[in-house]
Amino acid sequence: MRNLTMMTDLYQLTMMNGYFLQGKAKQTSVFDLFFRQKNTMNCVVFAGLDQAIEYIDGLHFSGEDIEYLRSLGIFHPDFLKYLKDFRFTGDMYSVREGDVVYPQEPIVIIKAPLIEAQLIETALLNIISHQTLIATKSARIVQAARGKSVVEFGLRRAQGPDAGIYGARASIIGGCNGTSNVLTGQMFNIPVKGTHSHSWVMSYDSELEAFRAFAEVYPDTCLLLVDTYDTVRGIKNAITVFNELKAAGHKPIGIRLDSGDLAYLSKLARKMLDEAGFPDTVVMASGDIDEYLLESLNNQNAAIDLYGVGTKLITSEDMPSLGGVYKLSAIERNGEFEPRMKISDSIVKVTNPGFKTLYRIYDKKSGMAFADLIALEDESLNKPLTLTHETERWKTTTLDDYDVRKMLYKIFENGKNIYERPSLEQIVEFANAERAKFWDEYKRIDNPHIYKVNLSDKLYELKQTILKNNRRHK
Amino acid sequence: MRNLTMMTDLYQLTMMNGYFLQGKAKQTSVFDLFFRQKNTMNCVVFAGLDQAIEYIDGLHFSGEDIEYLRSLGIFHPDFLKYLKDFRFTGDMYSVREGDVVYPQEPIVIIKAPLIEAQLIETALLNIISHQTLIATKSARIVQAARGKSVVEFGLRRAQGPDAGIYGARASIIGGCNGTSNVLTGQMFNIPVKGTHSHSWVMSYDSELEAFRAFAEVYPDTCLLLVDTYDTVRGIKNAITVFNELKAAGHKPIGIRLDSGDLAYLSKLARKMLDEAGFPDTVVMASGDIDEYLLESLNNQNAAIDLYGVGTKLITSEDMPSLGGVYKLSAIERNGEFEPRMKISDSIVKVTNPGFKTLYRIYDKKSGMAFADLIALEDESLNKPLTLTHETERWKTTTLDDYDVRKMLYKIFENGKNIYERPSLEQIVEFANAERAKFWDEYKRIDNPHIYKVNLSDKLYELKQTILKNNRRHK
Repeated sequence: MRNLTMMTDLYQLTMMNGYFLQGKAKQTSVFDLFFRQKNTMNCVVFAGLDQAIEYIDGLHFSGEDIEYLRSLGIFHPDFLKYLKDFRFTGDMYSVREGDVVYPQEPIVIIKAPLIEAQLIETALLNIISHQTLIATKSARIVQAARGKSVVEFGLRRAQGPDAGIYGARASIIGGCNGTSNVLTGQMFNIPVKGTHSHSWVMSYDSELEAFRAFAEVYPDTCLLLVDTYDTVRGIKNAITVFNELKAAGHKPIGIRLDSGDLAYLSKLARKMLDEAGFPDTVVMASGDIDEYLLESLNNQNAAIDLYGVGTKLITSEDMPSLGGVYKLSAIERNGEFEPRMKISDSIVKVTNPGFKTLYRIYDKKSGMAFADLIALEDESLNKPLTLTHETERWKTTTLDDYDVRKMLYKIFENGKNIYERPSLEQIVEFANAERAKFWDEYKRIDNPHIYKVNLSDKLYELKQTILKNNRRHK
Repeated sequence: MRNLTMMTDLYQLTMMNGYFLQGKAKQTSVFDLFFRQKNTMNCVVFAGLDQAIEYIDGLHFSGEDIEYLRSLGIFHPDFLKYLKDFRFTGDMYSVREGDVVYPQEPIVIIKAPLIEAQLIETALLNIISHQTLIATKSARIVQAARGKSVVEFGLRRAQGPDAGIYGARASIIGGCNGTSNVLTGQMFNIPVKGTHSHSWVMSYDSELEAFRAFAEVYPDTCLLLVDTYDTVRGIKNAITVFNELKAAGHKPIGIRLDSGDLAYLSKLARKMLDEAGFPDTVVMASGDIDEYLLESLNNQNAAIDLYGVGTKLITSEDMPSLGGVYKLSAIERNGEFEPRMKISDSIVKVTNPGFKTLYRIYDKKSGMAFADLIALEDESLNKPLTLTHETERWKTTTLDDYDVRKMLYKIFENGKNIYERPSLEQIVEFANAERAKFWDEYKRIDNPHIYKVNLSDKLYELKQTILKNNRRHK
């Protein structure tokens, strides 16, 4: 990844200059990165940590950068001098890539000198929100595909190169089986997939000639796109070529539909292929597919074995951003952390104060996820444990016995990356295992059952106290 | 820009390998890049050419790339050997960045050996579709802002680094006055903007203390964010500090609202600031703004002087991709170009055949854009000129006199970039001038008047002939 130190909002630098001049630069601060609830999307698949680590590891201002900043005429010379040796010296905590997380949960925590923590807000949000968004969309689509393979095809419609490259990576974390994106395949050792497009067919005098030529080059991996001119004629031409391949001792793979009524055409194609003696070939479908179309195709018993999913996955079309935010939760004063919170009339915009941690509570018997608990860092969990709903305080649950997992890992310590970065394969394995610990009702595409995310009593009391004190100031 | 040669769909490489083995690699082909009509979006602001040029100029496969491709086990050794010296040797035509274009119009045309034209499809679509999307969204938002300044604030919510970096560039082409993105500012010499966030306020013991500290550092550029705890109290605190600044001989800039009811709060803030003797200060607003919210704020006479627009601009939230496609339109056979077209039962998916060009016809008297004409490259335009609707053939218009502009420029000739790349400033100037030549009705946010995009008679006849011949093959 390129050096992205300058990829920040100007106000981060104006604030840094201010902190520096006000003698606040080194004040240790704690910032939480989390998502606000948005639309009906419920559980989220965390991704992007690996690129966030590279970003933080590479932080530095070049001489050119500093000269550019000087040219803006708003920074103090001493601050610009300070930037020359700028490095990240703080701590970073994060949940693991592939973990299932929920709105309001602190999924990345930065504990660092105020001036450093401020700089990295924008890039951290950019990198993590994007990849988490696409991993989440991918998980939804893969779930709706009900065990059929899904391949990510969206590069051309992605919002720029990085959206294609890292979006493909995130799609794999969400459960896709491969990508069409060769660069992502190369960078992350991901299976790459693809056969031919309409232009292959159009470059020949006839579709049949084009199919024959493709079969000649790829006799054992022959998957033909049949809708360049007329889908039914295309399937017939494919069968002609499949017969020729069979006669020569090869096994054709199948056909791809890219337009038209996929439910109708897939069933027709399946029937034609079966009747022609090719029951083992696959029918692949692509074209404007997302989790909603998949549910409709499932309901219609479409005969599709394999999906290529593009635009709506790579842009998360129905919700192209997560409401990712990064808020100050505590700041050091005379060696102690003072809690801080953003207050708003809108309850979802009120943040959780203090240096916190995040637990997942599992049901002892089933092993399934039961609830998450946001607590202050120095709290311990009791047995039995009573969980109370944050706003509807009469809703309580008591667990006599449970398993618990601390979800946040220490990634950087005093500026040094101490986290052993897992391979993408390991991330996918963890993602699948963790996702399997959530009941289907929590993963439902529409109106999912609400998973419990609770505050510890101590955190709840702290929050209430600060809110009440703020009202008093009016 | 990094080398993005490997940023392509695998099928481009499998087809290239096929063309190579089938002796078709050098066949000259013509591909059109265009947008399909999508939703109600009508006119589109073209952007991304500059990065597309860099991409094509930098095309080459490294030794590592070739070894990776070899490891996939699907490419012929001779093809891999050929890739070692791969360069783009063809021609590229393109409309200029900032130009107003419409669905179905060929806005980029590649005329190159088939194998080269095939490789670059994915990256061209990725780069151009993304930037055009954001430039278009920006133009819509800027128009709805009715002359008020709009600053792009979306980096943290963009779909990865490039979406933030090049999205900010595209926003400027669409009419934004600046960006918060420091890297984009540095790369393209764009004004960068920003003051402080909630965390500045929260890092102090009180909002008033935080405002005073900010005013101390930035006495002459003091714009204060007032909604960290309570907006009305925040405005009062800002006024207190503005009075102190005034007493010390400084001129405060204003306040920023980032939440709550922007119509109500802006009018209240304006009244409070005016009554306190600060009629020259600005009220800036940010938070979930797009063209629709702006129209609503206009209707409510909100007292906002300046907008910061983030998420909904940088992701083009209500339509996060354009339907960009790249289709073969002609291929050389024995020294002649044979037209090609993609056929579909859906009329919008039927492409226009042949090596084409694009004209904009202006009304001689008003100087305003009248219609666009897609014609074959070797046609000349007559006076008088009769334009006929493509499907509703009884709709004709005859122009006795008109001005005409050839919209496509030659960018690459035999692989060499011959186009003098304009600065972003020049692009913005052209964009503004051209956009002013469209009547407001065409630029309406909802249900715009349909601008005429016609086919020349010769192109129309060619298309009909091919369509009829295809039906006959059934």
